[in-house]
Amino acid sequence: MPAPVLSRRDLDFLLYDWLDVESLTSRERFAEHSRDTFDAVLDLSADLASKHFATHNKKADAQEPRIGEDGRVEIIPEVKAALDLFAKAGLIAGGFDESLGGMQLPMTLLRASMAWFQAANAGTSSYPFLTAANASLLVTHGSEEQIEKFVPAMLEGRFFGTMCLSEPQAGSSLADITTKAVPADDGTYRITGTKMWISGGDHELTENIVHLVLAKIPGGPAGVKGISLFIVPKFLVDDEGTLGDRNDVALVGLNHKMGNRGTTNALLNLGEGAFTPGGDAGAVGYLLGEPHKGLQYMFHMMNEARIGVGFLATSLGYAGYLQSLDYARTRTQGRPLGAKDPASPQVPLIEHTDIRRMLLAQKSYVEGALALGLYCSKLVDEQNTAADDDVRAKAGLLLDVLTPIAKSWPSQWCLEANSLAIQVLGGYGYTREFDVEQYYRDNRLNPIHEGTHGIQGMDLLGRKVVMQGGAGLLLLGETISATVEKALAAGGEVAEYAQQLRAATERVAATTAALWSTGDPAVALANSTVYLEAVGHTVVAWIWLEQLLAVGDREGDFFDGKRAAARYFYRFELPKTGSQFDLLSSLDRTTLDVSPAAF
Amino acid sequence: MPAPVLSRRDLDFLLYDWLDVESLTSRERFAEHSRDTFDAVLDLSADLASKHFATHNKKADAQEPRIGEDGRVEIIPEVKAALDLFAKAGLIAGGFDESLGGMQLPMTLLRASMAWFQAANAGTSSYPFLTAANASLLVTHGSEEQIEKFVPAMLEGRFFGTMCLSEPQAGSSLADITTKAVPADDGTYRITGTKMWISGGDHELTENIVHLVLAKIPGGPAGVKGISLFIVPKFLVDDEGTLGDRNDVALVGLNHKMGNRGTTNALLNLGEGAFTPGGDAGAVGYLLGEPHKGLQYMFHMMNEARIGVGFLATSLGYAGYLQSLDYARTRTQGRPLGAKDPASPQVPLIEHTDIRRMLLAQKSYVEGALALGLYCSKLVDEQNTAADDDVRAKAGLLLDVLTPIAKSWPSQWCLEANSLAIQVLGGYGYTREFDVEQYYRDNRLNPIHEGTHGIQGMDLLGRKVVMQGGAGLLLLGETISATVEKALAAGGEVAEYAQQLRAATERVAATTAALWSTGDPAVALANSTVYLEAVGHTVVAWIWLEQLLAVGDREGDFFDGKRAAARYFYRFELPKTGSQFDLLSSLDRTTLDVSPAAF
Repeated sequence: MPAPVLSRRDLDFLLYDWLDVESLTSRERFAEHSRDTFDAVLDLSADLASKHFATHNKKADAQEPRIGEDGRVEIIPEVKAALDLFAKAGLIAGGFDESLGGMQLPMTLLRASMAWFQAANAGTSSYPFLTAANASLLVTHGSEEQIEKFVPAMLEGRFFGTMCLSEPQAGSSLADITTKAVPADDGTYRITGTKMWISGGDHELTENIVHLVLAKIPGGPAGVKGISLFIVPKFLVDDEGTLGDRNDVALVGLNHKMGNRGTTNALLNLGEGAFTPGGDAGAVGYLLGEPHKGLQYMFHMMNEARIGVGFLATSLGYAGYLQSLDYARTRTQGRPLGAKDPASPQVPLIEHTDIRRMLLAQKSYVEGALALGLYCSKLVDEQNTAADDDVRAKAGLLLDVLTPIAKSWPSQWCLEANSLAIQVLGGYGYTREFDVEQYYRDNRLNPIHEGTHGIQGMDLLGRKVVMQGGAGLLLLGETISATVEKALAAGGEVAEYAQQLRAATERVAATTAALWSTGDPAVALANSTVYLEAVGHTVVAWIWLEQLLAVGDREGDFFDGKRAAARYFYRFELPKTGSQFDLLSSLDRTTLDVSPAAF
Repeated sequence: MPAPVLSRRDLDFLLYDWLDVESLTSRERFAEHSRDTFDAVLDLSADLASKHFATHNKKADAQEPRIGEDGRVEIIPEVKAALDLFAKAGLIAGGFDESLGGMQLPMTLLRASMAWFQAANAGTSSYPFLTAANASLLVTHGSEEQIEKFVPAMLEGRFFGTMCLSEPQAGSSLADITTKAVPADDGTYRITGTKMWISGGDHELTENIVHLVLAKIPGGPAGVKGISLFIVPKFLVDDEGTLGDRNDVALVGLNHKMGNRGTTNALLNLGEGAFTPGGDAGAVGYLLGEPHKGLQYMFHMMNEARIGVGFLATSLGYAGYLQSLDYARTRTQGRPLGAKDPASPQVPLIEHTDIRRMLLAQKSYVEGALALGLYCSKLVDEQNTAADDDVRAKAGLLLDVLTPIAKSWPSQWCLEANSLAIQVLGGYGYTREFDVEQYYRDNRLNPIHEGTHGIQGMDLLGRKVVMQGGAGLLLLGETISATVEKALAAGGEVAEYAQQLRAATERVAATTAALWSTGDPAVALANSTVYLEAVGHTVVAWIWLEQLLAVGDREGDFFDGKRAAARYFYRFELPKTGSQFDLLSSLDRTTLDVSPAAF
């Protein structure tokens, strides 16, 4: 039997013991829910993920999507079969209103459910998650007619959705997109341009694809302020919901990636005349919301997408951890230190200290990342449904500060976990006989997409900790302090960690002040990636202390495991921030001053 | 034009300015050589590597070796074509005696030559390097008859060689091999067993394959002391050098790996009766040297192999660095911080500070690793050819201490360099359109083979720094001190680094003493991997200071680049060791005490 890809025991602990998601059922939006309905969703997710997603993960990697002779994208049939089951179970609509056929699940539960699929099969699970994010944007900003035409079909899994942002000359720099949207007489637009890196950009998994496309309306402001957002379906849809003309969106090619191969990643040409909807070339697009607000709308979605990337990285890290743990328990190799008899039986790998070090490191990364992601998801629920305005505002503010960390930290450290999983398996881990090498390849995408690691650092240091006069950073500090106080009161090892955490948190504040003290953003931001990493480790140390408080003095292997992972994090990981804060506080100019000619 | 895979400018600096390899030509063994012959070898290597190895690197990855319907291994034809040119150029024999048709090149030059091929094509270049290592073992321990029968054919590239150590149940734990060698009446042995992870284990690239096989002669001592080494050719060879019967070595299967796909990696069955050489089942083997000394012989070779792995990791890191540098100079994206005009042209990536950080990090890793590898190679030359006994002994001792670092440090940090190279290229770097994702996959092997990272840590802390009463560690300390003294005298920034390095070196000594102070090896070795990493960073800091001394006050971009990379290493990297030494000195028991049940 293969190792599970996530730990239900850990999820239960985080969701119920720590975050008390059951209390959300007292809110009107979640009033129909209970621990039973939550558990049913988790059970269903684990079951579907293991039986229908994990089972073709390797095959989808080995036989990646390709363009057939007829120009259509060919994908192994297991993908559509799994996605049809996923849609039929109502999971695309999990977080949506009941009036749209949704389950009105809290985000915290929904993320836990999604994590099962991400861990089981990163490639296949991305289609419905992109679709849900797309539909959420439509629901928030679309007209009633737009919602009616597209959203139910997406939530039922008949249409899938994409986000079309990047272009060949505009990846991280969205200000430089050149895709053009020209108004037509009937209120629609005709769109021309080239879109790149489009996940799910073309396929035959569904009868239609709803592209959300960033484009510029001629005459608008330059740069990011002139970007509008359009709905561009692959096939036009009439008012009865019947599919009509093929829209002028043409597949130019698929990118062939190191990992995440199950998700098609397309280069699309819009409006080049490959198709002539309504008799004319040009992709027909429907303006979503108001003109020139496209990037603003997209960024709202992107914050959720960034937390989703964090979960994807976490899930892959978790799956690798459990597979390497399973291997370490069953594979025998070598003998204990000092064993005299070479004929004595070999011991399981886990008996070796260095193997346990690699397992503890993985455990501290993946369980820390999962807890951080669920904490952020709970903030989303607070932001959306808390009764008190102030609570809602504070949740939103804290979420803003934590988002770059929730995206980047798992992308860095759960990738490292995957590398350690390979190392535990040794030569076997390097072969395609096991899954860990694929997790490692799949996970390497996460520091790149939805804002690179470098961009998250700029976002955290350049925007999030200075916005509203530093209110977000202050709130983070207060929130951590509250945990520290509780832990100090608890005494013992937990109190020791609390002191360590308090010192690190003080360094975050002092370092932030020092960096901005010169008034020169170039100096302040020169090492923003190092800042991101140091603050990230501090935040995850806090999340580990939170977990320890939830553990309390309970006995048993599970709780001992939490204690050991926290100890590992406080002894091996948090101290790494010391030299990072030193470097930052010195306002080091090495990377700023080096001449490009010197390389 | 593709970016070069190594920097000849850097090699010239390291070889001639720093290590003064020209002075080796005053020694008898290298008397026929001169700067001109050295340069000719480097020119030839760069030329062959770029024109015949780099050109099929991607193809060999995409079309990995497979077993055809006739049971033979199929490899794309470019591999054999390149290897035939390599052999014809005399490069397999580069380090061997002239009497064997070799060039008697110093090891330092030979490694620099090999690095071009490793950087251009890890998979293809491994065949001749394994063959040379195999032949070197034969020359050292074989009888005249054995040498005559196999070595010239190997150096001419007509036979290739392998090392058959691991078995399915015995990977890192060689004590547990069960392959058996039973003496026959004619002085040969019949060998039976299964060998795993055999690089170059089967192919049709050459007319014969010479396997060196570890096996146990029944009745010998248990464990590693009962292991002998045998020559087992794929085809028997008669005294005239004519190929005879197919030996009983059968290909069972090929491993399919994440990277390094160009090198076949085989599971072999010996003596199962697939072939019947001389009419009988059982693989015919010839004892090499004395019985029961096989592991000792193999370890002599393995030390060289470990440095070779370090070079492979370094070369892949270097190639990725240069490719990402080229990309950063040509790809435009975004604008300088604070640019007001969104219509101003986008700037090259290298204008962004965080991109320069990633380039500087790579540069400090790959140039540091290359320098360390060449330094170790120079120690091999000293050990082999220095006039003075004491100099030879000291070189050998220092080499012993440095070998685990020369293997593991590049395997860790040049892999990290490859990850940064991907990051510089962003989404493009994640696709198979560029080479950096392949370098990353290829490089992930290096912390695993020829002794895992964990085993290198045990070797360093458990053996190398305590052997001869700690003489090796003492010598390393003295050697570093000599550099520190020179740097202190030089003054300025170099002197600052010298003080930093002196402090780190003192911590190495104090930490080593603290770790062994309890007398309990389990405690001392619990965090040996952390020790390996901390000492590794200290050693590379020393190597960077050495380079700075060789730079002196010379002006120009190249020298400014060396200064910037050294500065990066001293400001961003060496300080990381502080928390590692703290942890080690605390005799932390987290990894030792955690119960396997707690995971």
